[in-house]
Amino acid sequence: MIDLVDLVALSVLPIKCWRRALDALRGGEAPAQILDRLAGHLPPDNPFTLVRLRSDAAAGIARAARQAIAPVAWSEAAYPLALATIADPPPVLWTRGRVDALSAPAVAIVGSRAASQYALSIAEQLAHDLAARGLVIVSGLARGVDSAAHRGALAAGGVTVAVLGSGVDVMYPPEHAPLAAEIDERGAVISELVPGTSPAQFFFPLRNRIISGLSRAVVVIEAGEKSGSLITARCALEQGRDVLAVPGNVLSGRNRGAHGLLRDGAKIVESADDILEELGMAGPRPRAGTWHAAAVSDPILGCMTPGEPCDLDAIAAATGLGTAKLLPRLFELEVQGEVARVGGGRFVRVPQTC
Amino acid sequence: MIDLVDLVALSVLPIKCWRRALDALRGGEAPAQILDRLAGHLPPDNPFTLVRLRSDAAAGIARAARQAIAPVAWSEAAYPLALATIADPPPVLWTRGRVDALSAPAVAIVGSRAASQYALSIAEQLAHDLAARGLVIVSGLARGVDSAAHRGALAAGGVTVAVLGSGVDVMYPPEHAPLAAEIDERGAVISELVPGTSPAQFFFPLRNRIISGLSRAVVVIEAGEKSGSLITARCALEQGRDVLAVPGNVLSGRNRGAHGLLRDGAKIVESADDILEELGMAGPRPRAGTWHAAAVSDPILGCMTPGEPCDLDAIAAATGLGTAKLLPRLFELEVQGEVARVGGGRFVRVPQTC
Repeated sequence: MIDLVDLVALSVLPIKCWRRALDALRGGEAPAQILDRLAGHLPPDNPFTLVRLRSDAAAGIARAARQAIAPVAWSEAAYPLALATIADPPPVLWTRGRVDALSAPAVAIVGSRAASQYALSIAEQLAHDLAARGLVIVSGLARGVDSAAHRGALAAGGVTVAVLGSGVDVMYPPEHAPLAAEIDERGAVISELVPGTSPAQFFFPLRNRIISGLSRAVVVIEAGEKSGSLITARCALEQGRDVLAVPGNVLSGRNRGAHGLLRDGAKIVESADDILEELGMAGPRPRAGTWHAAAVSDPILGCMTPGEPCDLDAIAAATGLGTAKLLPRLFELEVQGEVARVGGGRFVRVPQTC
Repeated sequence: MIDLVDLVALSVLPIKCWRRALDALRGGEAPAQILDRLAGHLPPDNPFTLVRLRSDAAAGIARAARQAIAPVAWSEAAYPLALATIADPPPVLWTRGRVDALSAPAVAIVGSRAASQYALSIAEQLAHDLAARGLVIVSGLARGVDSAAHRGALAAGGVTVAVLGSGVDVMYPPEHAPLAAEIDERGAVISELVPGTSPAQFFFPLRNRIISGLSRAVVVIEAGEKSGSLITARCALEQGRDVLAVPGNVLSGRNRGAHGLLRDGAKIVESADDILEELGMAGPRPRAGTWHAAAVSDPILGCMTPGEPCDLDAIAAATGLGTAKLLPRLFELEVQGEVARVGGGRFVRVPQTC
């Protein structure tokens, strides 16, 4: 619990300190030590004293507990592996709903807030069809495309994750509270911001790296030239995730950003099949029986000693696979029960009894 | 004139003979000799006797003369160089209007006959903007996108060329006769089919190779999955021309063909600037003064002796440039007065007096 307080205290530091905190965390430094060091560098008259940071963190944790909000720390096995591998993973994910929704294979669908009926229809349809195939739909609960994507996933009886630019108990936009409550039932509403944090302009671009970080691919629908969705797409590229875009009318100006992505090499999406194909999930799923046969000769499993945790860099070095190739394969191996996550972005090969 | 009769006679042979005739023409064989050989291989009871072929050809030439239709033979300097370089150039282009319109840098705009208002608007706008920049707009005079493209070029006071799947004196669709008459004034209406030939289903795919063959790039607007425009795009690729496509609604199904082209690497078009950029014509035109300075050190001019006709293969071999790179550059050199065409796909360096 001390560790959690320190991790949460890192996330109440000023934003300019976040990147250094995250780098240090990934470097293996203990949260308490990072906190001491970073708080020590702040000007003496600043409000972020160590005592204040820790008491704010404890208050946040207590507030979360009262509202059934689970803090998932970077060091826990439940922390999503995909997110753990990005350059700047949040120390803590505050989670309403089902924590396991964060670790299933996911696709982000993002786009215009002032969306046309065309964009809303496509967002809903793509989300529906992908969710029906078992993919989690990640988006930002914003007006327009984001909420249409969440609704499409729910309509298919699927799972969806909303990543907020405020604390998960501060609803923005307020009219989406009922939608968030529905998402809780079958997915999760998450944020890196301590419960009680109000939405602010500068939180949203930061939030976008979590949307892409949780996902294997980002699908952009009706993004204008300066759309926030382009930030999510850029994060996805930096994180080695696929970027796809839906084309549309070239006369309205509404699709300049999406078409720009296509010009730069994003895959074109007309239907969910295009996304599934990009993820290597086209056609019928393999039968369960075929999985294990394949696993025996799997190069990733081959380089892991059962029961011994490995970090991603070590596996990448041993297999020669980049993170972009490695991650989707690790997801599959996890679904097949061949590997399990053990926190801190590491995982372990599960001994097989057969 | 004997030569023209023989060339025309080749084009009244059955279609299955065309490719062999064209190969032989490109190989340098005389039209009369090819005609003798090919007609000799037809079954004895066929209606294409040598006498009949030549009399039909002469009748076609006479009919054309009465209607101010100019036959431009493959061996003439006026025959468009771009078309001369394709694998299967027509022996004769029957031309209403201005023959010189066939040799200026051109872009083809093709697409759906049953076009949406969106497709019609874009076709007209792109054609207008490209024609205003001095490019000739080539299309097929069909209903929908084709005629919108011709109209857009005319509205800009520009030049446009219509390639028909019938004789140029047999209007199809009939209601486009007034449009064809307008095109005659500032461009050309052409066909490889002898005047008087009625439109037939199988002429249209063949016609498409001429649309792309005359053009540096083909822009596809709203092509469905089985659109004839995709044939034009395929011809363009085979001919080493650029293929571009305008995206649109993914729910209507109207753009599957165009989106398929984008998926396969066609450039995405939102405005005329995208096309100009692809042609290397973006931004302001270079001043006339800069042209000649560039020409002095031009590798193409460097390998040509002034006044001595060269064929394209020889220039390609000498410069190491493929046809796809060579042709646009030759167009520019022609516009600059550095080279001139001398028929049969050959050209000559023009001695400079400065």
